[in-house]
Amino acid sequence: MLSDIDICRTTSLSSIHDIALRAGLLPEEFHSQGKHKAKVSLNCLKRLSKKASGKLVVVTAITPTPLGEGKTVTTVGLAQGIAQLSHSVMACIRQPSMGPVFGVKGGAAGGGYSQVAPMEELNLHLTGDIHAVTAAHNLAAAAIDARIYHEQRNGYEDFTARSGLKALKIDPKRVVWKRVMDHNDRALRMVTVGQNDLGKTINGFERQDGFDISAASELMAILALSSDLKDLRQRIGRVVVAYSMEGEPITAEDLQVAGAMAVSMRDAIEPTLMQTLEGVPTLIHAGPFANIAHGNSSIIADNIATHLADYTVTEGGFGSDMGFEKACNIKAQVSGKAPDCAVIVATLRGLKANSGLYDLKPGQAIPDSLFEDDEKALEAGFANLKWHIENVAKYGVPAVVAINRFPQDSEKELAQLKAMVEALPNNVEVALSEGFSKGGEGTLELASKVIKQCEHESQFTPLYTFSQTTEEKLMAVAEVGYGASSVTLSYQARNQLEEYQKQGFDNLAVCLAKTPLSISTEGSLKGAPSQFNVPIRELKLCAGAGFIYALCGNVMTMPGLPEKPAFMNLDLDDDGNIIGLS
Amino acid sequence: MLSDIDICRTTSLSSIHDIALRAGLLPEEFHSQGKHKAKVSLNCLKRLSKKASGKLVVVTAITPTPLGEGKTVTTVGLAQGIAQLSHSVMACIRQPSMGPVFGVKGGAAGGGYSQVAPMEELNLHLTGDIHAVTAAHNLAAAAIDARIYHEQRNGYEDFTARSGLKALKIDPKRVVWKRVMDHNDRALRMVTVGQNDLGKTINGFERQDGFDISAASELMAILALSSDLKDLRQRIGRVVVAYSMEGEPITAEDLQVAGAMAVSMRDAIEPTLMQTLEGVPTLIHAGPFANIAHGNSSIIADNIATHLADYTVTEGGFGSDMGFEKACNIKAQVSGKAPDCAVIVATLRGLKANSGLYDLKPGQAIPDSLFEDDEKALEAGFANLKWHIENVAKYGVPAVVAINRFPQDSEKELAQLKAMVEALPNNVEVALSEGFSKGGEGTLELASKVIKQCEHESQFTPLYTFSQTTEEKLMAVAEVGYGASSVTLSYQARNQLEEYQKQGFDNLAVCLAKTPLSISTEGSLKGAPSQFNVPIRELKLCAGAGFIYALCGNVMTMPGLPEKPAFMNLDLDDDGNIIGLS
Repeated sequence: MLSDIDICRTTSLSSIHDIALRAGLLPEEFHSQGKHKAKVSLNCLKRLSKKASGKLVVVTAITPTPLGEGKTVTTVGLAQGIAQLSHSVMACIRQPSMGPVFGVKGGAAGGGYSQVAPMEELNLHLTGDIHAVTAAHNLAAAAIDARIYHEQRNGYEDFTARSGLKALKIDPKRVVWKRVMDHNDRALRMVTVGQNDLGKTINGFERQDGFDISAASELMAILALSSDLKDLRQRIGRVVVAYSMEGEPITAEDLQVAGAMAVSMRDAIEPTLMQTLEGVPTLIHAGPFANIAHGNSSIIADNIATHLADYTVTEGGFGSDMGFEKACNIKAQVSGKAPDCAVIVATLRGLKANSGLYDLKPGQAIPDSLFEDDEKALEAGFANLKWHIENVAKYGVPAVVAINRFPQDSEKELAQLKAMVEALPNNVEVALSEGFSKGGEGTLELASKVIKQCEHESQFTPLYTFSQTTEEKLMAVAEVGYGASSVTLSYQARNQLEEYQKQGFDNLAVCLAKTPLSISTEGSLKGAPSQFNVPIRELKLCAGAGFIYALCGNVMTMPGLPEKPAFMNLDLDDDGNIIGLS
Repeated sequence: MLSDIDICRTTSLSSIHDIALRAGLLPEEFHSQGKHKAKVSLNCLKRLSKKASGKLVVVTAITPTPLGEGKTVTTVGLAQGIAQLSHSVMACIRQPSMGPVFGVKGGAAGGGYSQVAPMEELNLHLTGDIHAVTAAHNLAAAAIDARIYHEQRNGYEDFTARSGLKALKIDPKRVVWKRVMDHNDRALRMVTVGQNDLGKTINGFERQDGFDISAASELMAILALSSDLKDLRQRIGRVVVAYSMEGEPITAEDLQVAGAMAVSMRDAIEPTLMQTLEGVPTLIHAGPFANIAHGNSSIIADNIATHLADYTVTEGGFGSDMGFEKACNIKAQVSGKAPDCAVIVATLRGLKANSGLYDLKPGQAIPDSLFEDDEKALEAGFANLKWHIENVAKYGVPAVVAINRFPQDSEKELAQLKAMVEALPNNVEVALSEGFSKGGEGTLELASKVIKQCEHESQFTPLYTFSQTTEEKLMAVAEVGYGASSVTLSYQARNQLEEYQKQGFDNLAVCLAKTPLSISTEGSLKGAPSQFNVPIRELKLCAGAGFIYALCGNVMTMPGLPEKPAFMNLDLDDDGNIIGLS
């Protein structure tokens, strides 16, 4: 089989103009960006909101191996399958971060015959939305340090006399807005900024700081959760960036930087329209990771897609404990649009890895032994799939298990897995998914089962409502969601909880950051762990995004590059084509 | 008069498709990015290189005030004037950095009725080229720290055994590749990266580092100096990022990251086509500052423009000691295309400021007194204009002085200035330039004098040739170029000079970084200083860009935000339009 980039390059694509018209957009509702991308104007929503909303299908997965189980392949393949069954359909996916593209995982366009195309444009820069988020985020960071510098250099009164501005009296020890970068750069996790030579204060005041990857920026969450530009602007104004010497929260509005941040993100609020290899219109928008952020593409993109098409297929990152949990508890409660069906992607290799009998590491090749028949490992790993099926059922969302087939998979094991799912008491459906090797033709069974499950009356129930206390909401996700037996808050987290309560930040969602490699907060606990504790190390108020963010265990908000990063394979050939991207 | 953004918004623009065709591009040679921007494919050069090259006009200036003297206004206005005289013409300008846009100076689209439009798209993000440079630059930085971390964690042999890669043995004290950001962020000038909690080495090895503004990145210079994508790729490979423990230079090629960096910049190599308010096709490409970098838009853009149009108007940043010096000594020697005419922009306010009788500070309003008649100040400041006229003459390039008129200017002083220029023995022409208030109609006299000067046979002579020694080249710029009486190299600079010589890096240009606010390296020395020393603090090898970079005096490669930054004025109105941008 050809490589992903070669398949993509040899497929003849429609002009994005034709794709947009076919999707139901009017010529004035989009702006082509070259041949294969278009920005979609939010003006279309005024016209479309009169139409009934179509069905929303959320693709999730078992607990993944570090290489992923093929959720994007399945999302794209399924959308192509639904199109082949002559239904109107769109896909909505996140913009890939360049961190993983250059780091370990590679691109995030799907693969084989189920890709968003052109994959090299999707995987690099695209229309610049992540860069706009990064720029807006770091503008606020520069504004904070500049304000501290100017206010403290000659004292607050002098500052006010010179500038006419009120002194904000930012406590340099309580700046809670880090900087961000769209790279895997572990050396930036912990830095000291504002250092000076020879005791001269010309570069600001020294303080401990750090960088997160842009996918973890609160602005990325805001982009994904906003309903329109006005909402985006207001949310940015509410972002708490620091605390004053008196302990009062200081917002981006207080810094008078919220307007400029919104200006910087004005084009980013428009989703980018692309197409799959089979011409299914696909909206790309926002890119929060699902381990350290809320892991779903935007409410705006879903809103456009569900009003244009009868079926919209989107995905939540990692397993159903991660992106799907947040799709239900955060995104659906904000948007008011619940998933009509969940697709749980499972692979033989992923389930066997979940047996705990294999040790897979990011950046290392999958051992061949994982593709050999191993009934025992498959049975042991099946506990993980069963857990995810039951987890999706907690939300009242009907599900279909998609067995994402790899070329090396054994027929015997595939049949065994299908039989195991069919034997479950839940009303879950199961289908082989061969989108990678066959495109939409390989997902026809999956597509018809998804359409069938979408017919059920919605029974959607989130695990909590925003009006509960923050502690109750954290417990709901950890204990009801993950199945933990207990939750412990660190001393710091407990203090933060109290502080946010006092400040009135209580009616927010909660967004838990944890390893995606286990249902628990310990990556090494495979399968369906129970009787585990969820330790909450630290909380972070995201008043603009509308959630309180909880760091569980040792999760890192800035990844690192491996020994042999993916960037080493990338280059340009003599004709200027990109090689080595997958 | 309306504000810049209001003039821009109320002017009816042509579709960029029409502008491109009118410029002489074929439909397959450009890709529209929305209604008003297009990326120009370098393929057009194959077709166009058979045509004769048109005339190249470089706009430069007197020593500017911190607010600038209106070089971009004059560039755009002059191009519009040439078009009104029925000649084919294009303008080439740099992409504005968001640092100044959000900081002090504001946008860089020109102003009044001589703007590149839409100015809000030019001033923010544009087509993402600066972001691509930033991303490629920081990818190499992440690659360096990651390599140090992986090699040193368990020793070189262990690293090679595990990864199959040769140990580069990077000396963490001799990493010469800083990180960059397109913001004014003084707190990032000096930072410590790779810090760890509690003695655990999980974030890398601690070392002193810093950030420059993206305009100062060697990759920005490479973008501006490359002839094509292949040349860009090769230059990136030659970039020296660090030295090994044995003192050997380590390149981006050695790190195996050069290919990925070129991939990240693949779209950035295509200039962006826009239009002026009067529909003159304008190429925007690259954005090196002229104080801390080489300060000129790209060779590729000039090459396309001069092969499409009879006249190409471009600009070099700041005074003729800065961008124009580098346009002649670096850019023209690399491209082989010399300027046919220089335009020296002068303003009454700028000349009076050069008298030394006024004290202007960035971010502060211009004192009204500067617009009152002050014959003495004008005469004193005229020495500066005279210096720049003589400076341009050193290169054998014919010149026209453009007096950029401000609404408050007095007729008497304008006449006085004109007469003083006309009385000079040089063959210099002079014309009022009213592009700001009248568009192309305000520059007709300037345009015809420029066209006349372009008829002179080229006498172009750079101040040095690349084959001279580095010290000779530095002396040529400082003593012949600036008129300094001496040059002193710091101990560090002297050692670096020796080292580069030993390593064989001798056939390169030199790029001096210094304050733009004086011909000397002391911002406070106004007018036409002489008998000054040029102290070279530090050298930096830019083997990819092809020059040795010299830091003179206290020049900063990362600006800071003022007390009341421009970003405070920016916001979105209820219709989502940007307000407060100028």
